[in-house]
Amino acid sequence: MATIYKGNILFTKTQHQFEIIENGYIVVEDGKVVQVYTTLPTAYQHAELIDYSGKLIIPGMNDMHVHAPQFRNLGIAMDMELLPWLQNYTFPEEMKYADVNYADKMYRRFIKSIWKVGTTRTVAFGTVHKQSTAHLMKLMHAAGLGGMIGKVNMNRNCPDGLCETVEDAIADAQELIDVWDKEDNLVRPILTPRFIPSCTPEMLKALGDFAMSNNLKVQSHLSENKGEIAWVKELEPESTCYGDAYNRYNLFGQTPTLMAHCCYTEGEELELMNKNQVFVVHCPTSNCNLGSGKSPIRNFLDKNIPVALGSDVSGGHDLSIFKVMVYAIQVSKLWYANSDKKMPFLTLPEVFYMATKSGGSFFGKVGSFEPGYEFDALVIDDTELNHDNYTLLERLERFIYIGDDRQIEHRYVRGKRIDEPTFENV
Amino acid sequence: MATIYKGNILFTKTQHQFEIIENGYIVVEDGKVVQVYTTLPTAYQHAELIDYSGKLIIPGMNDMHVHAPQFRNLGIAMDMELLPWLQNYTFPEEMKYADVNYADKMYRRFIKSIWKVGTTRTVAFGTVHKQSTAHLMKLMHAAGLGGMIGKVNMNRNCPDGLCETVEDAIADAQELIDVWDKEDNLVRPILTPRFIPSCTPEMLKALGDFAMSNNLKVQSHLSENKGEIAWVKELEPESTCYGDAYNRYNLFGQTPTLMAHCCYTEGEELELMNKNQVFVVHCPTSNCNLGSGKSPIRNFLDKNIPVALGSDVSGGHDLSIFKVMVYAIQVSKLWYANSDKKMPFLTLPEVFYMATKSGGSFFGKVGSFEPGYEFDALVIDDTELNHDNYTLLERLERFIYIGDDRQIEHRYVRGKRIDEPTFENV
Repeated sequence: MATIYKGNILFTKTQHQFEIIENGYIVVEDGKVVQVYTTLPTAYQHAELIDYSGKLIIPGMNDMHVHAPQFRNLGIAMDMELLPWLQNYTFPEEMKYADVNYADKMYRRFIKSIWKVGTTRTVAFGTVHKQSTAHLMKLMHAAGLGGMIGKVNMNRNCPDGLCETVEDAIADAQELIDVWDKEDNLVRPILTPRFIPSCTPEMLKALGDFAMSNNLKVQSHLSENKGEIAWVKELEPESTCYGDAYNRYNLFGQTPTLMAHCCYTEGEELELMNKNQVFVVHCPTSNCNLGSGKSPIRNFLDKNIPVALGSDVSGGHDLSIFKVMVYAIQVSKLWYANSDKKMPFLTLPEVFYMATKSGGSFFGKVGSFEPGYEFDALVIDDTELNHDNYTLLERLERFIYIGDDRQIEHRYVRGKRIDEPTFENV
Repeated sequence: MATIYKGNILFTKTQHQFEIIENGYIVVEDGKVVQVYTTLPTAYQHAELIDYSGKLIIPGMNDMHVHAPQFRNLGIAMDMELLPWLQNYTFPEEMKYADVNYADKMYRRFIKSIWKVGTTRTVAFGTVHKQSTAHLMKLMHAAGLGGMIGKVNMNRNCPDGLCETVEDAIADAQELIDVWDKEDNLVRPILTPRFIPSCTPEMLKALGDFAMSNNLKVQSHLSENKGEIAWVKELEPESTCYGDAYNRYNLFGQTPTLMAHCCYTEGEELELMNKNQVFVVHCPTSNCNLGSGKSPIRNFLDKNIPVALGSDVSGGHDLSIFKVMVYAIQVSKLWYANSDKKMPFLTLPEVFYMATKSGGSFFGKVGSFEPGYEFDALVIDDTELNHDNYTLLERLERFIYIGDDRQIEHRYVRGKRIDEPTFENV
C-alpha cells in the first residue's frame, strides 16, 4: 500500500546541489521511497495522500557522534579543554550510569531531546556499563528512532568505576550483539573503544578481532586535540600516526568505521582514511567549545573521504544537526580567511549532504528521497519565518540558520510517523 | 515609590566574576536600582513586591551593532564575503527603504524580534534615508526599548539610490538631533558614516566637525576584512592605518565611538583605540558567516580597550546576544588553540560583562544592578532546562548556551515592564 506525501520537497542526491520539487509528491511503500514526482501519476490517484502543501519536506537528520550519558552536562562546564574536561566533568557523570535507574531517567530525557530537534538516526556512545547501554537501546527502540549504540570500552587511564577487563568487554559485546544485531533492527550495537588512551594494546587487539569476526561496525575518536595526539604518540610509540594506532588493530575501516573530530589529520593519516574509507564525523561545535581546533574538512572532501556531522554533546552544546551545519560552514570560513582563500569554504548543499545522505549511508539507504531509500523525513512548517517573498531554498536556509524545533511539525522514520516518545511499553 | 523584585539575581560588576544572590531583592525607585539585598530591610516591608522566586533576574542585553534594514536577509545569503555581499545582497535591500511603508512593515518585525530575544538596548544602523530612519526611532520609542539609531552616511562606491550629498547629510543629521537628541530620551540618534570606502574625505570632514560641535556619538566599521583594509589603504593613502583614516577626521573617539569588528586591529591602530578609548563591538557570528576572520579580543582587554557585543544582523544570523556570547567564547578558543595556549580564551563572566555593563556604559549607567543603575532586566524562567541539581551559575550558563526566547518571561527597561510591542500609538 502506497502512501503519498505532498509538499515542497528538498534533498541532496550529491553534495553539489539541492533537488527542489515545489508542490511535489513522494510515493512511499513499505517504508521506502518509490519515487518523487512533480505530478502524481494516475496509478496513485486512489492511494492515501497526506497533504503538507506549502510546507517543506526534507530528509531526517543523522547525528553520527553524540555521548548520550553526557546529557546532564549539556550547556555547562565549558571552561576546560579535552583531557582535563574528561577527568573533571565527563567521567564523574558517566560513573552514575552504573545505576540503571539513573540511566533510565536521563536517557528518556536525552531521547525526547533528540526527537525534538529532528534527529531521526543517532550513533551514540553509552558508558562502559552493559546494562545501562542495553537500556538505552531498548528506549531508542521504544521511541521508534533509529541508531547505533555503543557500550564504551575502556581499561586504562580512567577512574576505577569506569574500568573493565578485556574478558568482560568481549563477553558484554557478544551478549549485546546476540540480542540486538539483527539485519533489520532500527537500533543496533556498534563497537566503541573510547579512544587510544583508554584502551590497552590487549583491549584494542581483542576488539579489532571481535569486530572483524562479527563484521561489526566501529566508532571512536581521532586527532581531536594536540595534547591527546602527543599522549597517543607516547602510548603507542610504534604507530606512525594516531590513525595507524587503530589501523594496526583492525579498527580503522576494516569494518565500516566512524572517527569523530580529525582536527589535525594530514599526511599519512589522511591517506589511510582515504584508502580505508574511514568516515570523518565532523563536530564543529565541540571543537570550538573544547578549544580543540578547526577540522580541515575541505581536505577530506578533496580526497573523497566520507564526511558526516555530529553534535558531540556535551562537548557540543547543541543537539540540533541544523545548528551543526551552520557551524560547519562557519568554521570552514575561518579556514578560508586564514588560508588567504586557498581553502574554499563549505556550501549549504555540502553540509546538508553530510547531515543526510552521507551520514545516512552508514546505515544503508538513508538520507535521500531517491528510489529505494528508507523514508526518514521531517515536515517543516516555517510560516513564522516565511514573512516575505523567499524562494524554497531561502526558506530552507532560513530554517537551518534561524529556526528551531518549533518549526518541525512531524518526524518520520522508515515511513512511520514518530510522535513524542512516551516509552509506554518499556 | 520603591518596587521590590525578588528572585535569583546574577550580574557582573567586573569582568572577573559574577555577583550571585540567591533569593535576593532588588529595590528599584524611579527606574533605578537603589540596592540589592539578601534580606529585605524593614524599611521596604510595605513596598510593592514582585515575586520572581525561583527564577533568574539578570540585566537586559545590549546589542551594540545591528543593521535594522537587513532584517529580511536574516539567515540567507551566506555564500559571499563582505564586499560582494554588500553589493549583491545588502545594498539592493537597503534601497527598498526609500519607501517608508516598506520600512514601517519591516522595522515593526525587526523590533518585535529584538524584544523577543531579550535585547533591551540596541545601537542600530538604519539606511541613508532620513524618513525611514526617523520612523525606526519612532517605532523603538513606541515599543519602550532603548537605543541609538544611525541614519547612514554614504556618498561614494554605492548605488545611486543610496548616495547622498554632504549638504543633505549634515542637514538631515541636524534635523534628527533637533527632534531626538534630548538628554533623557531612551532613543537617540548616533552619527553613522557607513565605513571609509562609502564616504569621501569631504563627507568625513563634515561629519567629524558635526560630531564635535554637537557632542554626538559615532559608530562605524573597522578592519573587518582583508580586502576592505586594502581598499581603505588605496582610498586614504595618507592614513597610517584604517583607524587613523577615521581619527584624522575626528571620528575615532573624539566623541564616544563604537567600531564594529576590528578583526585585524594591531600595532598603531590598537594603540590609538586605547588612547582614544574607542569601543570594539565584537560581532563573532558575522565574522564567521562572512569569512572575515577572528577578532583577537584578548588583545583589546589586555590594553583596557572597552569591548561590547553586537549581533551584526544580517552578517550575523542570530539576534540573540546570548548566542553572540557563546560565539565570542568559541572564537576565542580557536585563538587559544592556534596560539598554543598563549592567548587565554574568554570566560563566561568576561562575555557577560561585555553584553551588559561594558556595552551598557555607552548609554550611561546601564547593564548592572549596582546602585544608581537604570533597571534594565530580564526575568528567566528556566524550569524546562533545570531538570537536575544545577547551581545558579550553571542554570545561567545553560540558559545562555541552550536556551532561547521561550525562557524569557519578562523584560524591563528603566524599571518599566515592556510587553510585546503593538505600536498602537504610531
